[in-house]
Amino acid sequence: MSLGEPGAPREDLGTVRIVGTGLLGTSIGLALGGGAKVLLDDPSPTALALARDVGAGVVDDGGASPDLVVVAAPPDVTARVVAEQLHAHPHATVTDVASVKLGVVEQLASRGADLKRYVGGHPMAGRERSGPVASRADLFLGRPWVICPTRVSDPERVAQVRRLAAALGASPVTMPPEEHDAAVALVSHVPQVAASLVAARLIRASDPAVSLAGQGVRDVTRIAGSDPTLWAQILAANSGPVRDVLRELRDDLDDVIEALAALGEEASGGHAWPPREAVGARGTLARLVAAGNDGRERIPGKHGGTPTSYAVVTALLPDEPGQLARLFHDIGEAGINVEEFSLEHAPGMPVGLAEVSVLTAVRGALEEALVTRGWHVV
Amino acid sequence: MSLGEPGAPREDLGTVRIVGTGLLGTSIGLALGGGAKVLLDDPSPTALALARDVGAGVVDDGGASPDLVVVAAPPDVTARVVAEQLHAHPHATVTDVASVKLGVVEQLASRGADLKRYVGGHPMAGRERSGPVASRADLFLGRPWVICPTRVSDPERVAQVRRLAAALGASPVTMPPEEHDAAVALVSHVPQVAASLVAARLIRASDPAVSLAGQGVRDVTRIAGSDPTLWAQILAANSGPVRDVLRELRDDLDDVIEALAALGEEASGGHAWPPREAVGARGTLARLVAAGNDGRERIPGKHGGTPTSYAVVTALLPDEPGQLARLFHDIGEAGINVEEFSLEHAPGMPVGLAEVSVLTAVRGALEEALVTRGWHVV
Repeated sequence: MSLGEPGAPREDLGTVRIVGTGLLGTSIGLALGGGAKVLLDDPSPTALALARDVGAGVVDDGGASPDLVVVAAPPDVTARVVAEQLHAHPHATVTDVASVKLGVVEQLASRGADLKRYVGGHPMAGRERSGPVASRADLFLGRPWVICPTRVSDPERVAQVRRLAAALGASPVTMPPEEHDAAVALVSHVPQVAASLVAARLIRASDPAVSLAGQGVRDVTRIAGSDPTLWAQILAANSGPVRDVLRELRDDLDDVIEALAALGEEASGGHAWPPREAVGARGTLARLVAAGNDGRERIPGKHGGTPTSYAVVTALLPDEPGQLARLFHDIGEAGINVEEFSLEHAPGMPVGLAEVSVLTAVRGALEEALVTRGWHVV
Repeated sequence: MSLGEPGAPREDLGTVRIVGTGLLGTSIGLALGGGAKVLLDDPSPTALALARDVGAGVVDDGGASPDLVVVAAPPDVTARVVAEQLHAHPHATVTDVASVKLGVVEQLASRGADLKRYVGGHPMAGRERSGPVASRADLFLGRPWVICPTRVSDPERVAQVRRLAAALGASPVTMPPEEHDAAVALVSHVPQVAASLVAARLIRASDPAVSLAGQGVRDVTRIAGSDPTLWAQILAANSGPVRDVLRELRDDLDDVIEALAALGEEASGGHAWPPREAVGARGTLARLVAAGNDGRERIPGKHGGTPTSYAVVTALLPDEPGQLARLFHDIGEAGINVEEFSLEHAPGMPVGLAEVSVLTAVRGALEEALVTRGWHVV
């Protein structure tokens, strides 16, 4: 795939009907190149006209029979709309983009829908903004697009949905709906709950207390800025898998709280005689952090390959336009590839801390390159 | 303060004795300029010789009387060493760098130490590496340095420790030990526990599941890579405040688990008649995420000022040396100041996603500047 040309030839896909022209639906139309073979529909006339006007396709007048229907409706109406589309277009394959999959299949089964022609999907892409105006042809480039066939899905229709994902520049990943829902509970829904739980503690913190916030708490709570209504829908739709993971997490949390209580009693001397020693409490704490080390290492590194840990080189950056350009110019001149990068601002000072992650083998070369070019490496 | 010259004139500080020449102690010596007025001591002859050799100061031969003693020992021996130093140097002010403060004061009081001359400190700085060889004169530049006087601390000695922090380029922040410990429980220790709890869930996840990990779970679990032994010490030393915050967090977590269980029963139809509706469950979930929004907004923005939310512009980046330089060159040329930056790699593809945060007012200008220079803004 060339970066310059998102969207592969569309011949294989035939006529694609998109139901729901919000951010995802409109972006799919744009990425397919719009035109006469992309038919658009939406219950909101305004959203529909906007999607047409940005070039996502033509308004569906019922004149053409679609080969593929993409339902891009809100999660809580997805199953109903998919069932309607399966009924209205008896030869078409129907897919969707909802972020939880098993519930859709179960609701379709209970409605007696033709499940052979339904292949669920979940593009792992999004933006902070929503609606057709925020849409982008590049939205799916390089992102995973999970495809969730059931045991009864027609294999040719599964291939058809994979071709859609590939045409949009995404990386198709196939797994059963149950496995998808358990996976997103682990890597998306539970982290969201944890971020919100930690951030909620800050509401009543004093100003001096929050002034000590560093990069750690910023990272842990970044996704706590998410939309409450959307997340209530997502968590409710995946209640079983999320609850299972949160119960495990609570068991570990209970152990930590118990260990801390025992240590508090040990420190205060308590009232017991002989004084209680918090046997094993420090071990409980160390074991949790060690388990976190192990879990963290499961997250794949760059390019989906083996997890890699990088060396981090931190440089001081005066807070002026052009300084990052100069830094990256100097790194590029040294022929060093940056694996990860983050920029942190020092509280109360016009100085940034640039954290440059590189392969461990080139750490020394990077430090030397920066120092000889006048950077303060800290 | 000039970036080029960390370390202010040292005349005011007199003779400084540093006990413990690990990363922090050695960095303090370096930042003070080393030389004859910085006396070094450490129970390890190797660590002591290394600190001397990198230029952090001279080995203390007992010939000079210190004006200020900085104890940079491991947290679990800090109180004992501070008490010894107060006793051995009856005219000196003694400070320390331990990350939990109230326990040190309590232990000193129970040892009958001269608390008027003790002023605790906590520089909020560190590196991934430890030991004297990892030390840097710039380590404290722009970082908060919390100073924790007690009711009996001599005000002139508090000012002396503030001068030390300022001389090292840090931003001194004064608060009582109890308030410091409650603050770091909120902004450092509880986020660490939460990150470890979430990361620990990934240990038994399947490879396809972790392949779906995006930036959210990476951010939430980044600090889960921390050292278990050190963190067991820190959490144990701050057991009371950490336990209090974790209990609040558990109460909210219990509400979430209960709401999810009610939703699961509603979805399955349950066995009750009439079928139970999970009244209020979605509201519980939405309220938690909304509380997270509010808490997240408490974290101060750049330069310790009012919290600011930035606009994020995402650009696609071919994975080759020099691309980041070109990106930042183009941004600098447009005269736009980058507030925050992160780089994410797309799984399985040689493409990076560069997320550039800027003030909302210049979002349009940045997008235009990038697009006209040939970047794919997504």
